[in-house]
Formats: sequence, structure tokens, C-alpha cells
Amino acid sequence: MRVYDLIAKKRDGFPLSKEEIDFLIEGYTKNEIDDYQMAAWLMAAFIRGLNEEETSNLTMSMVKTGKTIDLSSIKGVKVDKHSTGGVGDKTTIVLAPLIASIGIPVAKMSGRGLGHTGGTLDKLEAIPGFDVNLTSQEFIENVNTIGIAIMGQSDEIVPADKKLYSLRDVTATVNSIPLIASSIMSKKIASGADCIVLDVKVGSGAFMKNYDDALKLAQTMVQIGNMLNRKTIAVISNMDQPLGYTIGNSLEVKEAIETLQGNGPKDLTELCLELGIQILSLAGVTSDRNKARTILVDSINSGKAFSKFRQLIYAQKGDLNVLNNLDMLSQAAIRKEFISPSEGYIKSINAELVGKTSLILGAGRQKKGDKIDLFAGIELKKKVGDKVLKGESLATLYFNNPLVEQEAILTLGAAYQFSDLPVQEQPIILGTVK
Amino acid sequence: MRVYDLIAKKRDGFPLSKEEIDFLIEGYTKNEIDDYQMAAWLMAAFIRGLNEEETSNLTMSMVKTGKTIDLSSIKGVKVDKHSTGGVGDKTTIVLAPLIASIGIPVAKMSGRGLGHTGGTLDKLEAIPGFDVNLTSQEFIENVNTIGIAIMGQSDEIVPADKKLYSLRDVTATVNSIPLIASSIMSKKIASGADCIVLDVKVGSGAFMKNYDDALKLAQTMVQIGNMLNRKTIAVISNMDQPLGYTIGNSLEVKEAIETLQGNGPKDLTELCLELGIQILSLAGVTSDRNKARTILVDSINSGKAFSKFRQLIYAQKGDLNVLNNLDMLSQAAIRKEFISPSEGYIKSINAELVGKTSLILGAGRQKKGDKIDLFAGIELKKKVGDKVLKGESLATLYFNNPLVEQEAILTLGAAYQFSDLPVQEQPIILGTVK
Repeated sequence: MRVYDLIAKKRDGFPLSKEEIDFLIEGYTKNEIDDYQMAAWLMAAFIRGLNEEETSNLTMSMVKTGKTIDLSSIKGVKVDKHSTGGVGDKTTIVLAPLIASIGIPVAKMSGRGLGHTGGTLDKLEAIPGFDVNLTSQEFIENVNTIGIAIMGQSDEIVPADKKLYSLRDVTATVNSIPLIASSIMSKKIASGADCIVLDVKVGSGAFMKNYDDALKLAQTMVQIGNMLNRKTIAVISNMDQPLGYTIGNSLEVKEAIETLQGNGPKDLTELCLELGIQILSLAGVTSDRNKARTILVDSINSGKAFSKFRQLIYAQKGDLNVLNNLDMLSQAAIRKEFISPSEGYIKSINAELVGKTSLILGAGRQKKGDKIDLFAGIELKKKVGDKVLKGESLATLYFNNPLVEQEAILTLGAAYQFSDLPVQEQPIILGTVK
Repeated sequence: MRVYDLIAKKRDGFPLSKEEIDFLIEGYTKNEIDDYQMAAWLMAAFIRGLNEEETSNLTMSMVKTGKTIDLSSIKGVKVDKHSTGGVGDKTTIVLAPLIASIGIPVAKMSGRGLGHTGGTLDKLEAIPGFDVNLTSQEFIENVNTIGIAIMGQSDEIVPADKKLYSLRDVTATVNSIPLIASSIMSKKIASGADCIVLDVKVGSGAFMKNYDDALKLAQTMVQIGNMLNRKTIAVISNMDQPLGYTIGNSLEVKEAIETLQGNGPKDLTELCLELGIQILSLAGVTSDRNKARTILVDSINSGKAFSKFRQLIYAQKGDLNVLNNLDMLSQAAIRKEFISPSEGYIKSINAELVGKTSLILGAGRQKKGDKIDLFAGIELKKKVGDKVLKGESLATLYFNNPLVEQEAILTLGAAYQFSDLPVQEQPIILGTVK
């Protein structure tokens, strides 16, 4: 087999066989195939596309380049949840203990934030002492003992993805649905779950800017899951404005805790319930949506969900005082109100610009390895559809570095659009793909 | 300007501006742009195509990366002729002295052979002593004195082309008409001619396997020439069977000399006359085809063309004895008749396979820098349309290494197809693009 022929084949729009994709991905991961040949193949794949079979074969080829996590020593159906990334997305912090409180084992491997999107690990680290660096043994032990553990994703799974992503990032081949889908699904499959619930975000703050692309990505990932014998469901959710009211690590943890206590924002609560309903269905608890919803809501209202979160914090060495004193999570040195320049109804809040503002304030990373300010962030006061008076506060900015204020204000200012007429509230759930 | 954006732009099918193409080609030539980014761009350009303006801008961007030959000290209209490469193509060796004998200055820069196609420099070196390594000064002096000089193409012209070609060669991005056209035309334009006559070959032995592709390539190159103020004409000629009867360096020189003496094969003679007619038109001698033909034929019949060839050999230190003793050009140690396995009419002779046979016999290079056997080659006895009896010789193989015989026989055997019914002779000229 020659790389050249595989490039030419894809260039001319023909599908590659399983063996051909294996050859390409294995060879590239082992540095036997040069970047320039892979770049040419990636561009051909970007433009010509990959069919369902190629996409699931690519996913498995990537999985095979690394370690696969064995969760077989955990009893019960292991369900993993993955979000394609958004602004203010603290869903996992709510959903993981909520699900675990119902008796479904949660063995969750998460990532860090990059660019305008945040990461669960960073957020959890806003709880003083919280340790995401568990050994595999601790991880599995915690799940078997308290039903929940959250740790960093092992560097040993899917090394192909890291290498391919770096190359795609500089060759304009990132935004390809089959390449994105196989990248995400390879990591989910290597992480060992039996079932996968995907939260595919769509809108200004998401990777997918329009519904059709999000639907296509959702369908592609569900197809991959099904072809590789993982029950997979995708929920398509709105990321046109930030999720909830807070953006920034400690602020988001605060909001997640409030949500676990039943006092969360409507959109975040709804999204967690919808994802929870799908997880309960996949885990075989119930496929009756109403029953599932009742189970979830009961777990929040009874304090079971919050109590599970407390167990998680304790098991992973987090400071439990935070739970009694949420102000520990909003300690930035500087707070600044962002005043509305207009009067009227908020027509839109561009989530990507809000995410960028948060990044400017110090809450995110421009590039891997950057240090982040866990207290920096934004608390929105108003969301789309809300009426606002001129001079009223639209949001509070939290930050420690006074030098960033002006740039943050300018960026956030560009995020808002106003309307004289009332604006309809946006739905949070846009669709489901099974 | 960022390379990333230029890759994305071409990926999405948008045309690049002159400045953007300059940035890309200059940056790549200076090693400021990495191979993998260029590979992604090339694949995008291959699949999405380049429009006329982009193609001529690309050509000029490539020209600007190197030296441009200044032929202004040569009096008269300088016409360059270029062939896209074929099997048995000794046209330049006939045409250059023929044209020079009419008083049109011939300042010809040629290349070497690679793969199954030969190169003029190698062929001329079959004449003992012939020196293709002239200095620029000698080159121009010879043209001003005797009206003709042939030398190797300077390494200093179009360095971008060499670098790009190496990358295209390993990334399956060679066979793109705008990329081929700009590669050829950049070298022609850097070589300083006022007018360009292109011989675009089509058929089994050519780069372009079908007429439509050849026509498109011809049109693209003529467009580039016109956009860059070089009068350009392309002749599309048949390369489905080898040109003339000989393939291999010294054997081809022999046939070229016979053609200059008026005893050449019909197809080669016709092609040289047609290209000559176009050159006479571009040079402003005459645009009347009949007149031009008469001038050319007269120059052959009167011995003027051959006499100009003698001057060329003498000026470039070749052994003039060759001209009186053509057997000096067929001195391979082994000669073997290739016997017809069938009786009937020759339906086709696959030129690429004949070229490969010649390569196997030692006449060509598998890769740059390989040493070649100047005496190795093939002399066809029959061409398409000829009747042949079983046991009759189809060709004579000339070679020095007895180990290659079997492979050569097998390869050549696969080149022939026979028919019981008479087969029409193939036309040599298939079209002209102005």
C-alpha cells in the first residue's frame, strides 16, 4: 500500500477501505507518514468528504493508536456525556452528580478549555483542593464506592487525534464534519463507556454555527456510535447566547451548585433534564420521558443530587466549605458593571464574543498550557428577550488584572443587539438524533 | 496575510488575488511556509481549480522567485518551442536548426529526460563531445554568430517550480491542468523568449491521455501567454504511438539527422513542418501557411537546414564525423529483433510501454541523476496501420546490458495490439490553439 495512492483515491472522491484508513492513521501516528502527505489527504477528505463507513473506520483506526480504558470492573451501564463545547457550559458539573444520585455510575473523563470555550476540569479546579489527577485505580474505586468520579482524559488514549488535530489546525481542515465526528467519537469510545449522550451545540458560541451543520454532525456521531456498537443519542442545543448567566470557572461552579439545589437558570436546568432523560433511557432506567423527568426533578428537590456532588468534592479532596459559602467562588479583586448603552429588548447576545470577553478577562487560554485566572469571568444580568433600560447593568465583569478592562468592555459591547419590539425567548433544546 | 486563510479560501473555492498568490509562492520558495501547509493548498487548488487570472498570476509569481534570462542582446524575434514530453520526440533537434536556417534566432534552453520521456540535452550528448554547458555569454554569442545555440536550462530560473514539483510529486497533485500549465509557462517566460510555440502531446505516451485534457492544457497555456504578453500558439499532436521510428538517445539523433536531410519519417516531418509554420507566423516571416511550408521544405531540400545543424554541432564542440557516419549512433553491443507474435494489421502501439521498454534497456532515468546508456533504445520497423506477418520483426532492440532483455521483451510485447482488418493511419496534428 502506498500513501500516494490513498491521497489520489480520496482526491478523486473514492472511498477508502478499512485497511487503507488503518494504514494511513497508524503510519501517521508512528511518524512513518509525513505531515505534507497527511495534509494533502486531509484536504482531499475535507473537500470530498468521507462516507459513513469511512468515518466509523477512521474512528476505530484512531482508537487503535492508543490505550482503551477498561471500565468493566464498574458495575452497571456506563453512560458517557459529551458536549461539543460552548460558552457558560457547566452542564457536566450539574449532570454528573444528578445522574450518579439516581444510581447510574458516572465515570467521567473531561478536558480543559481552549479559546472561547471552557473545560470541566478547569471549572472543578475552582473548588480549592479539588484533584482531577486520579490514578485509574482511584477513578474506578471512587465510581464503585460513591458512584461518581471525574478525572482528566488520559494522554495515552487516541494519540492519533492529538497529532491529526495539530495538523488540521494549521491546514484549514478542522471544520469537516466527518473529521470532527471521528475525533470526538474516538475519544468517547476509547474512554470505555457503553452508551454515549452527545450535547451538540449550535449557534454563535458553538463550533457549529447553523442548525443544518449541527444536525449533520449529530447524525454522523450517532451513526458512528451505532456502527461501533455504542448506543448513542445526540441532543442539539442552543448556544446562540451563553448557557445560564455565568461565564468563567468559579462563577460557573457557583451556578452549577445553585442548579443542583434547584435554583438554577431555566435554560441550564432544562438542558440538564433533557440530557438526563436521554441518559436514563440509555441506561435502561426508563424510556418514559415523564417518568424520567420526575426522577431527575425529585433527585434535585430532595437534595440527593446536591448530596452526591458533596460526596464527589469530598472524594476528590475539594474544600467542602465552598458548598456552604458560595461567595468563595466570586472573589475577583475587581468587579465592574457593564452598563446598557440602549433601551429596549435584548435581541441577541453573541456567545462567542462573550466567551472572548471572558478569555480577555483571564478566564481562558489562548493556547494550550496558558495559565488561567479561576476567578475571572462574567455574570450576565439579562438574557435574550429581557427588557433593559438605558444605564441598567447588563452584566458584571469579574477580573484581577486592571489592564484588561477596556478591551473586555469593547468586546462585550459588540456582543449585544437590541430591539424596540419584544423579542421571543430562545428554546434551549432544538432537536434530538437517535 | 496568513497562509491559513489562503488555504481556507482556496478550499472553499474562492479565487486568490495576485498579492495572495505572490505571498504563497514567495514564502514557500524562501522556506517561510511549511510543506504541510503548501500541500494542503495544492490539494485544494487541485480539486477546486484555479481560474485564468489565478493561473497567470501563479505563473508570474513563480517567475519572480528566480532569475530571468535576458535575450535582448539577440537581434530579431526570439521564438521558443516547448513540448509537453513524449516518446521518440526528437522534434527540437530537427526544428531548431531548420528554423535557424531561415534566419530566425534560436536560443533554446532544454531539459533532460525523466521516466519514459526523453530530453533534448541527453539526445544531443549522444554526439561525442557535444557540450550543452554553455555560459550565458557563449550562448548569446553563438546565437548572434550562427543563429543557434542549445543549452541546459539554468538552475537559477523558477526555483519555486522545482520545490513545488517535488511536493506535488508526493502529494498526488501533479495532474492539475493549471498547475502543469503554470509550471511549463513560468520556465518559458523566465527563459526570455518573445513568442512561444507549444507542442501539447496527447495519447498513451503523453502526460495528457485524452484530447479534452490536452485541449484544456493547450488553452490554459495560450491564455497564460497572452495574459503575460507573450504571443503563444499551441499545436496538439498525437503521442498515442511513438513519434518516428526510433526511441533512445543516439538512435533519435540519427533519425533527426535523416529528417533534416529530407529522409525522415512522415509523422516527425509533418510535426516539424507544422510547428515551423507556426513559428514563422509568430516571428513575422509569413502567416501564409503554404508560403511558410515552402520555405521550410526548401530549406531542408537545399541542405540549408542540415548545414545549420552542422554549424551547431561544430560551435558546441560535437564530433562532426558523426554526420558523415551515422552508424556511430547505433553502436549498442547487443541487437535483438522483436518478432511479431501475430499476423495482421497493427492496431496500436502503446507509446508509454515503448518508452518504458527503452527505459529498461538503459536509455532513460528512473529518477533524477541516474546514469543513462546513450546507445540503448528501440528502432520500430512498423507503425500503426502497417501490415505484419507472423515471425516478421516489429522492432530492433539496442542495448548493452544482457540482463535487461527479458523484462524489455515482456514490456514491449504488452504495447502491441493487432487487428485482422485494415487499420487507418493516425493523423499527427490533432488541433491548434491560438
